[in-house]
Amino acid sequence: MQQLNDSRRTRRLLVAAWTVLVVSVAPASRAEEGMWLPDQVPALGERLQSMGLEVPPEAFRDFEKGPVAATLEMMGGTTSFISPTGLILTNHHVAYDAIRENSTPEHDYLANGFLAATREEELSVPSYRATRVMSMTDVTTEVLAAIPEGADDKTRHDAIEKISKKLVAECEKDSGFRCTTATMSGGLQYYLIAGLEFRDIRIVYAPPSAVGNFGGDIDNFVWPRHTGDFSIMRVYVGPDGKPADYSTDNVPYQPPVYLEQASTTLEEGDLTLTMGFPGRTRRYQTSAQIAFFREVYYPAVIAYVSDWLNVIDTASETNREREIRLASTREGLANALKNFQGKLIGLDAVRLIEKRREDDAALSAWIQADPARKAKYGTVLEEIAQLTQQAREDFPLELALRRMQRSSTMLSTAMGLVRLAGELQKPDMERDPGFMERNLPRWRKRLELMQPDLDPEVDRILLDHAIRAALVLPEGKRIDAVDTHFAAGSASAREKRIQKTLDKWYRQTRLTDLEYRLALFDGGTEAIEASDDPFLQFARELLPLAESRKEIAAQRDGAASRLMPLLLEARQAFEPGLMYPDANSTLRISYGEVRGYWQRDAVWLSPFTTLAGVLEKEAGQEPFASPESLLEAIPGYEELRINMVTTNDTTGGNSGSPLINSRGELVGLLFDGNYEGTCDDFVFWDEKGRSISVDLRYIIWFLEEVAHADALLEELNWSSSRFRAEAP
Amino acid sequence: MQQLNDSRRTRRLLVAAWTVLVVSVAPASRAEEGMWLPDQVPALGERLQSMGLEVPPEAFRDFEKGPVAATLEMMGGTTSFISPTGLILTNHHVAYDAIRENSTPEHDYLANGFLAATREEELSVPSYRATRVMSMTDVTTEVLAAIPEGADDKTRHDAIEKISKKLVAECEKDSGFRCTTATMSGGLQYYLIAGLEFRDIRIVYAPPSAVGNFGGDIDNFVWPRHTGDFSIMRVYVGPDGKPADYSTDNVPYQPPVYLEQASTTLEEGDLTLTMGFPGRTRRYQTSAQIAFFREVYYPAVIAYVSDWLNVIDTASETNREREIRLASTREGLANALKNFQGKLIGLDAVRLIEKRREDDAALSAWIQADPARKAKYGTVLEEIAQLTQQAREDFPLELALRRMQRSSTMLSTAMGLVRLAGELQKPDMERDPGFMERNLPRWRKRLELMQPDLDPEVDRILLDHAIRAALVLPEGKRIDAVDTHFAAGSASAREKRIQKTLDKWYRQTRLTDLEYRLALFDGGTEAIEASDDPFLQFARELLPLAESRKEIAAQRDGAASRLMPLLLEARQAFEPGLMYPDANSTLRISYGEVRGYWQRDAVWLSPFTTLAGVLEKEAGQEPFASPESLLEAIPGYEELRINMVTTNDTTGGNSGSPLINSRGELVGLLFDGNYEGTCDDFVFWDEKGRSISVDLRYIIWFLEEVAHADALLEELNWSSSRFRAEAP
Repeated sequence: MQQLNDSRRTRRLLVAAWTVLVVSVAPASRAEEGMWLPDQVPALGERLQSMGLEVPPEAFRDFEKGPVAATLEMMGGTTSFISPTGLILTNHHVAYDAIRENSTPEHDYLANGFLAATREEELSVPSYRATRVMSMTDVTTEVLAAIPEGADDKTRHDAIEKISKKLVAECEKDSGFRCTTATMSGGLQYYLIAGLEFRDIRIVYAPPSAVGNFGGDIDNFVWPRHTGDFSIMRVYVGPDGKPADYSTDNVPYQPPVYLEQASTTLEEGDLTLTMGFPGRTRRYQTSAQIAFFREVYYPAVIAYVSDWLNVIDTASETNREREIRLASTREGLANALKNFQGKLIGLDAVRLIEKRREDDAALSAWIQADPARKAKYGTVLEEIAQLTQQAREDFPLELALRRMQRSSTMLSTAMGLVRLAGELQKPDMERDPGFMERNLPRWRKRLELMQPDLDPEVDRILLDHAIRAALVLPEGKRIDAVDTHFAAGSASAREKRIQKTLDKWYRQTRLTDLEYRLALFDGGTEAIEASDDPFLQFARELLPLAESRKEIAAQRDGAASRLMPLLLEARQAFEPGLMYPDANSTLRISYGEVRGYWQRDAVWLSPFTTLAGVLEKEAGQEPFASPESLLEAIPGYEELRINMVTTNDTTGGNSGSPLINSRGELVGLLFDGNYEGTCDDFVFWDEKGRSISVDLRYIIWFLEEVAHADALLEELNWSSSRFRAEAP
Repeated sequence: MQQLNDSRRTRRLLVAAWTVLVVSVAPASRAEEGMWLPDQVPALGERLQSMGLEVPPEAFRDFEKGPVAATLEMMGGTTSFISPTGLILTNHHVAYDAIRENSTPEHDYLANGFLAATREEELSVPSYRATRVMSMTDVTTEVLAAIPEGADDKTRHDAIEKISKKLVAECEKDSGFRCTTATMSGGLQYYLIAGLEFRDIRIVYAPPSAVGNFGGDIDNFVWPRHTGDFSIMRVYVGPDGKPADYSTDNVPYQPPVYLEQASTTLEEGDLTLTMGFPGRTRRYQTSAQIAFFREVYYPAVIAYVSDWLNVIDTASETNREREIRLASTREGLANALKNFQGKLIGLDAVRLIEKRREDDAALSAWIQADPARKAKYGTVLEEIAQLTQQAREDFPLELALRRMQRSSTMLSTAMGLVRLAGELQKPDMERDPGFMERNLPRWRKRLELMQPDLDPEVDRILLDHAIRAALVLPEGKRIDAVDTHFAAGSASAREKRIQKTLDKWYRQTRLTDLEYRLALFDGGTEAIEASDDPFLQFARELLPLAESRKEIAAQRDGAASRLMPLLLEARQAFEPGLMYPDANSTLRISYGEVRGYWQRDAVWLSPFTTLAGVLEKEAGQEPFASPESLLEAIPGYEELRINMVTTNDTTGGNSGSPLINSRGELVGLLFDGNYEGTCDDFVFWDEKGRSISVDLRYIIWFLEEVAHADALLEELNWSSSRFRAEAP
């Protein structure tokens, strides 16, 4: 459920990978595979220079002067500075929530797009934050030293959590930074990352959705693509230059580095680099682990997401206001669904489980062949298999529990509050990280910002479905609190109980009331415990089970943090080479080149699409209904390139990553991966997996010819005519 | 309804065409457009030689020694001689009915394929006939001379029918030929065609349907394609060398010419020629005529065919015996449906009506600009528009009437018999051509052969649906006989009447009885008129309306035969150039080259597919379930080509056409057109419309490596190793 943990994450799960021939665990053997840490890039220097890199490879680990200093994480995606005046470029779909929050049926910026004529007109987005990475420090020694000798898995997990909290607290003390620790390669390394978090982000330009999301669900993950998936925002800081909440006194942030318009466009074979925050990959897992995802996890999640989508579609059919409100959730779900379905097809197509099983067997034989290796790694594969088996058994109950909370904002709010009541009684450093003082302000903000999105009607339908799913759990893995309220002998009696109980809960609850929610939060343990809100009561009944599942998960995590490093160590000793850690939402650099691919027998997809293709797809109805202003501007520009594919290894979280050329200049904006690459969590498929970017030249053309955003273009110092210059 | 007149025709409506840029009515201006008459080929000599033709162009009008002498019309498709021992090569889908008629659930040759180990094992197919063209003679002068001065349209039609009968009778007298007249270019020319009709055709080799129809409905009209759509049959004649009905005494026919295996395979850009019997095009119609098809005809027929398909699918669901029985009808319908849907998309995509409207306006202006032209052609466009308006108004009633007969074998048999009763009372030369003595034997044969295909249950459902369609005809255009039996005040009363009446008819009818049908036929007028079979009675009630519609149609045809030659004459004078007549199931030659195409922006489809693509599509279930024997033979041959596209201008009826190279050698077997070309009735789209053929090399490989048909290969003198030779 990683992809669903943060609803922001689900927006567009970026993507690129597989392998059809040999699934290698020695990534260095694959030409362009790899999501590299900044400090690994110098080691790739020779390879990059042979592909044409003119920037010193060292620049990619320079957080003050290198292009990475222009790159920010934003709401589960990526963005980058493009002017000395704090302007940032990201995808339309990364800015989607921001546009949506500012849209109403009267001012429908989603439908019509938005251009701020002056700075005063820029639209503020209280829910948005963007983070610039200030440093990434290897703290493996500190973390490992904190684990007691002979610790069991639960103790191990707790010890890692504790030292992480300590490192974060030290890092944040008086620095003004927001710090996190990151587990690399399942625990082979630990990093401490300091970030500068901006809290005043405003919308400067957004195209109409018909451009930014041209092709919609149908074209999502599809190449050839013809989507103008870009938006421009601006980062503001306080008059003192430091991050601040929104205020009219704030001023544009002056970044240390910004990316400049390239002077030449790309050609087939040209080197391209991306910087961004890829979310999650599982490239080094064993066949048993992959089989869990293939056989249990994705099929179950697909069924659940499909149901959720159906509920939204039915409820939005004749209600445009609700449609706008749920648009972002809907887009995230549709995207996830297509991605998950693609993964299943992909895993089967490349026969990954079968092949990884062979890899595992070869590794195992190599381990067994040497007494020292056997002593160290002899049981790793088997222990991981057992751990996976346990996950398989626990999964249905865990999914049912999570689904109830994910489905219902009422219930998840209530669960959060009753947990808060308990956690507040502990010293700060002993709390669950989500409930530490440093996180309480954003917690409160969420309780505030959720108000316009509350929809008790849809909330109830989704909870109803989740409860029905929980009611069919197998004996011994059931949720008592659900049974107490909803189980009954006959189907009709059960039906009655569900309807009657939910009627009552939704009638009585006061959690829809903003003042009430904030009063409970501000009142702390006492206020929460005193409430008899039906959702809080239900949450209290669910809590013991939820807590015990959390304990079990912590134990599994502890075991994984012990076993995965051993597995990776063994793999690397077996097949040496430079190894990148799995994606984990930390800053990464990927390199590749502009390259088409044989999609299937006799079907060659060239690496560039043109505006002629927009006209081909144009159907006058969603999702292929371009605005008149675009259609009128195309004649004479039919051959102008709009999107392109490159071999950069990226995934969900890379949305909005800048695509830069060999000179470090901005040439495009990454926004998606192709369907062949949806399996990228598990494997990189260099033959057919591709990243999809908007050509910067199209963005500039669009701002010039369609949006007529002259002042903005001037501020950016962007111009179509600049592309006429020869490469220096 | 042209495509549905003969159920054989519907099998695979071959296809290739459109035009997206300029719709030209001067075909010679388009590089490879044209379905040329044999005697037109010499005029194309220079062009063909510039493309590499080594055979003298004159050979294509030599019905004794040229490659056209190896080409036969068979069951609405095409086939060609490939050995001196009467072997012919055609498509699996053209042989489909033959294989089906010989299949039972126990001997399921459709599913398993068939190979005759000896001549004795070859499977006879009484329903099949194949015709070799012996001569094509221009009889325009004779026909036009037979039309009385100042004849009205009905008189004109009757006069043409009469002279045609006379020419046919003279041609057939003592010759042993089967003759027909053909109207070229709507009446600009008339041809008399003499054919040698073979009546003993046997199946020698057929691949499993999983090969011959790999991809099924899904891949139908699709490029890239991976289908082994071929079969081999043999033509037998009596011991005297003349066509004869099936007999064990018969011997293989020795054709004057047969096509030999090419010594080299094709490369991109190589010249290819096809010979065959394209069924029907309407390339020279006015915008008004095309609009009738776009707006009225195809939408109505699509609705009706979809319904028919649903009925068959539902009725076959749990009945494999019925599924086999209806398989051919089903395939024809599904094919027609996809083709018709493609036409609608195509007509809109190329904006043909709009563009033809401009062509018409230009032509009109040119006509009006000169008094002599105005006198001759001044009213042609307007008169055609009026004629089309009449067709629009008549269409719903005509379709309803046709649908009832087409839906129900009971009713169509009854209609045939009551019409026969009337026609038999006229002198032979005055009868409707279908009822002339020369056609009565095949009439009787049809009454015999229909027996195993009768399915009163499905027949009744389809008639039920047709009656309901007739019951909603507009006032003034209704069918009285239907109203008499089925109309009622309320919906429930109507429902009751339909069920009650059909119950009775299907219970009482004896038309399901072979002996009874033949007794009526043999008993002639008296026997038929004496029968009180409910379907015969209903047919008698329908007859007056059917006859009056026939009169009206004859009048329209007469008008068309007057107006279309004028239109074409004007068009040709306006834009001079060599002009081919519209396809009309007569022998034609088309030339082209091996050439891929940009399917859409950034998508290039190369002209060859390979066996690797079979593996890619393989899904283990229909329609992508290759036999094990094929899958096992592929390793090592992944790059062997299987299908290819060429720019030859072909359409439905070209199925089974031999594809020959510049030296007149056999290189492939045409079997389909691509979806972009389904609009070929109206326009040739050289940019994207393509013909699809099976590569002969694949056929030989398949016979060698999968079918192990060694004796057959030896008889054919075919071998993979021959392809190794260099071109002479």
